[in-house]
Amino acid sequence: MVRRFSEETNGYRWSDMSVLAYKPDGAHFKGITRQILFGEAEDLVCQLRYFEIERGGHSTLEKHQHEHAVLILQGRGRVLVGEVVHEVTPFDLVYVSPMTWHQFRADDRDGLGFLCLVPCNRDRPVRPDAEAANTLRTHPVIGDFIRL
Amino acid sequence: MVRRFSEETNGYRWSDMSVLAYKPDGAHFKGITRQILFGEAEDLVCQLRYFEIERGGHSTLEKHQHEHAVLILQGRGRVLVGEVVHEVTPFDLVYVSPMTWHQFRADDRDGLGFLCLVPCNRDRPVRPDAEAANTLRTHPVIGDFIRL
Repeated sequence: MVRRFSEETNGYRWSDMSVLAYKPDGAHFKGITRQILFGEAEDLVCQLRYFEIERGGHSTLEKHQHEHAVLILQGRGRVLVGEVVHEVTPFDLVYVSPMTWHQFRADDRDGLGFLCLVPCNRDRPVRPDAEAANTLRTHPVIGDFIRL
Repeated sequence: MVRRFSEETNGYRWSDMSVLAYKPDGAHFKGITRQILFGEAEDLVCQLRYFEIERGGHSTLEKHQHEHAVLILQGRGRVLVGEVVHEVTPFDLVYVSPMTWHQFRADDRDGLGFLCLVPCNRDRPVRPDAEAANTLRTHPVIGDFIRL
């Protein structure tokens, strides 16, 4: 089966595929959508998702036991992995190891779209508690970057 | 960890990543390379590979129990899935269900590069035996397309 790609004014789209909310609700992310490219309808052990962040938007700062395998598909942005902020452009690869703080931010003048591969059977993300947030906020590199 | 993408004259490349032979040897494929983007060094349940086929080249016609989840990354080509030949362009999605004959062919004037997601724990591909090859060769749609 083939799903056709098209670039619409509101973002990347595939035939017969729903654009989903990134998460139910929250103030810890901004301007981000989710599409499950593979692994929802199919009997796969992994899901391949496509996330698209509007210019100036960001994903949730979080960590979890499962790994992330990311390929940037379009746009420009920065990603925090552990204590390092990386600039990313298409088709850079980003690997996030278990229990590593990470956050994706789109550029202020450009959105950011990326594929993210995860196991279907995975743990729930954890957000920083008050103490961890304080430590992250005062970190010389991370402090300016993160959005909580 | 981030691996940087670069487009070289001989194809798509990522930092510190080896370009591998598609398969050890054989006359049943032509002009195709393989790079394991995720799942070799990492502790993932899936592998994400990038295959690149030169203009006029093709993958092996085969089938297997494990599923393929494919995203076209560059170029132009055609793919046989079961009894249907699809034209594909970037970022079309192709899903190959278990035990379905499939073959990728690059366009004669353009190469074809695609991501292919598979489980790490998977069965070996099967090629058509003499009887199956004969059936496929005489099929009205498949016959002209396949390269054995």
